[in-house]
Amino acid sequence: MHSFNGLLTQFEQFFAQHSFPTSPATLYEPCSYLLNMGGKRVRPVLCLMSHELFAELNENAWNTATAIELFHNFTLMHDDIMDAAPLRRGYQTVHEKFGQSTAILSGDVMSIYAYEHLNKINTTYIHTVIELFNETAIKICEGQQLDMDFEQRPFVSMEDYIHMITLKTSVLLATSLRLGAILGGASLGCAEVLYNFGKTLGIAFQLKDDYLDAYGNTAKTGKQLGGDILSNKKTFLSAKAFEIATDEQKLILSDLLARKDANKVNDTLAFFDQLNIRQYLETEMNAYTSRAYELLEKVPVISKRKVHLQDVADMLLKRIH
Amino acid sequence: MHSFNGLLTQFEQFFAQHSFPTSPATLYEPCSYLLNMGGKRVRPVLCLMSHELFAELNENAWNTATAIELFHNFTLMHDDIMDAAPLRRGYQTVHEKFGQSTAILSGDVMSIYAYEHLNKINTTYIHTVIELFNETAIKICEGQQLDMDFEQRPFVSMEDYIHMITLKTSVLLATSLRLGAILGGASLGCAEVLYNFGKTLGIAFQLKDDYLDAYGNTAKTGKQLGGDILSNKKTFLSAKAFEIATDEQKLILSDLLARKDANKVNDTLAFFDQLNIRQYLETEMNAYTSRAYELLEKVPVISKRKVHLQDVADMLLKRIH
Repeated sequence: MHSFNGLLTQFEQFFAQHSFPTSPATLYEPCSYLLNMGGKRVRPVLCLMSHELFAELNENAWNTATAIELFHNFTLMHDDIMDAAPLRRGYQTVHEKFGQSTAILSGDVMSIYAYEHLNKINTTYIHTVIELFNETAIKICEGQQLDMDFEQRPFVSMEDYIHMITLKTSVLLATSLRLGAILGGASLGCAEVLYNFGKTLGIAFQLKDDYLDAYGNTAKTGKQLGGDILSNKKTFLSAKAFEIATDEQKLILSDLLARKDANKVNDTLAFFDQLNIRQYLETEMNAYTSRAYELLEKVPVISKRKVHLQDVADMLLKRIH
Repeated sequence: MHSFNGLLTQFEQFFAQHSFPTSPATLYEPCSYLLNMGGKRVRPVLCLMSHELFAELNENAWNTATAIELFHNFTLMHDDIMDAAPLRRGYQTVHEKFGQSTAILSGDVMSIYAYEHLNKINTTYIHTVIELFNETAIKICEGQQLDMDFEQRPFVSMEDYIHMITLKTSVLLATSLRLGAILGGASLGCAEVLYNFGKTLGIAFQLKDDYLDAYGNTAKTGKQLGGDILSNKKTFLSAKAFEIATDEQKLILSDLLARKDANKVNDTLAFFDQLNIRQYLETEMNAYTSRAYELLEKVPVISKRKVHLQDVADMLLKRIH
């Protein structure tokens, strides 16, 4: 049993062994560039941690964790193109630095390398793992598509919003835990509880993201306050405001959405305050957080073994940036 | 044992059963749109035909053929973005019709569905099939990258050109044959001969493409004559011209490449005629064609069983459009 940092160090070592071919450098350098930007490696570590609840770490677990991280980075590379994002983790995005065509193709090849690692899983587990992995991979694409579709709509309902973030963000965290457990020999039922824990944790995590964007400490987050508001990104805040606003208030909200001036963020936040959106969001975050911890409790493993998962949940949910 | 058209009809039936989910339509409609444009389905039919040399068609073969066709269409969808192609088979390309972000994401999800089908292969074969499939998928990405890299260079050598088309075009034809054979119980050695047949056939096929672009009957091909010349695409013709040209002729060729006027195609073709490029190309096409037929001869199966493969080779190599 290892802590987050213990597993992270080990994972980085295993992951570093996975190097891409040197040629064509124009294809593989962008892959290494993105992977070397760092990132918390939360998903592979969750996979390994979940595996350790039931068994010693083995090649199946390492390869699955690696596949998950490669696939995650593949989606980041393509999402950044679609979102026209100039920066990721303070670095130029791949399409900005290497061009869009390369970002498409380097992403494609990275996803194939993810399946290379899945193909190293032994016969007992390979079908189950690829099935669950694919199911999740498809959901992630669907979530990204919904996110883009929502950009075309002035408002989205809370139900639609939660559905979208579940697909786009939560299911991969959830599946990382489930796969680790299955490969460790856990029962499917037990793996399902871990899946639900991860899914709930993922929603709470995304709501925290929405919260920090609007109410975070910019010195800590390093991001512009209200970036989501400025770009009319759909968040819990806009979904909730739309849900509870009177018809008259909806018109005010529409006007705010249409604005592009410097005071847009402040005025929108002031409007959200009138509707108590911050309190609604805090209540909802707390509810998902509590539910996540309850689900972790339900995992049929003695509490002592779950302390590291508890720590990861704390790290993700209590972060201030 | 079935003919090309016999297998094509059966494959279309199996393939039609593979429908995408209905929602989000914004993600899946572009997938169906591309698949419904038609296409010769050469790769899946080759896989099935190769399988039939050794065994009755079974689910393993159908699913592999389907995965190959889905993967091929995924690469087409992304290549069209990279090439900024407005049309495919007379229809608007996916990115033109549905937007670029959707074309990226619909392509991504289509590639995952390819692996869904590979995951239906039974335990005996799954590791081998995914390994060979991935190896090929990676080569296709590398080939596309080289093709793009070559656009930045005034000339490419014949060796580089043949290497690029081998990766981009030939290996998937070759692997379709190899996988069909392996799943039919052929020895690895025998499957390798079929692979080499497919690879050689693929190169001959691409050279024929280059030939038709420069010397085809536009009424039959439905394409503008010299489209490759106009867009400075690297072909056998330009590689050969660069290989045999004197330093003085290379300067003329450079000038031709830089031109954008209406007579560029005619003048370049006239220059190629001076260098006997057409004869070189015909000789090379014939050499690859003969080599392909020789390799087919070497497949250790009685000649009668190989007649349909011979027909496909004829169809691909003797086509006039």
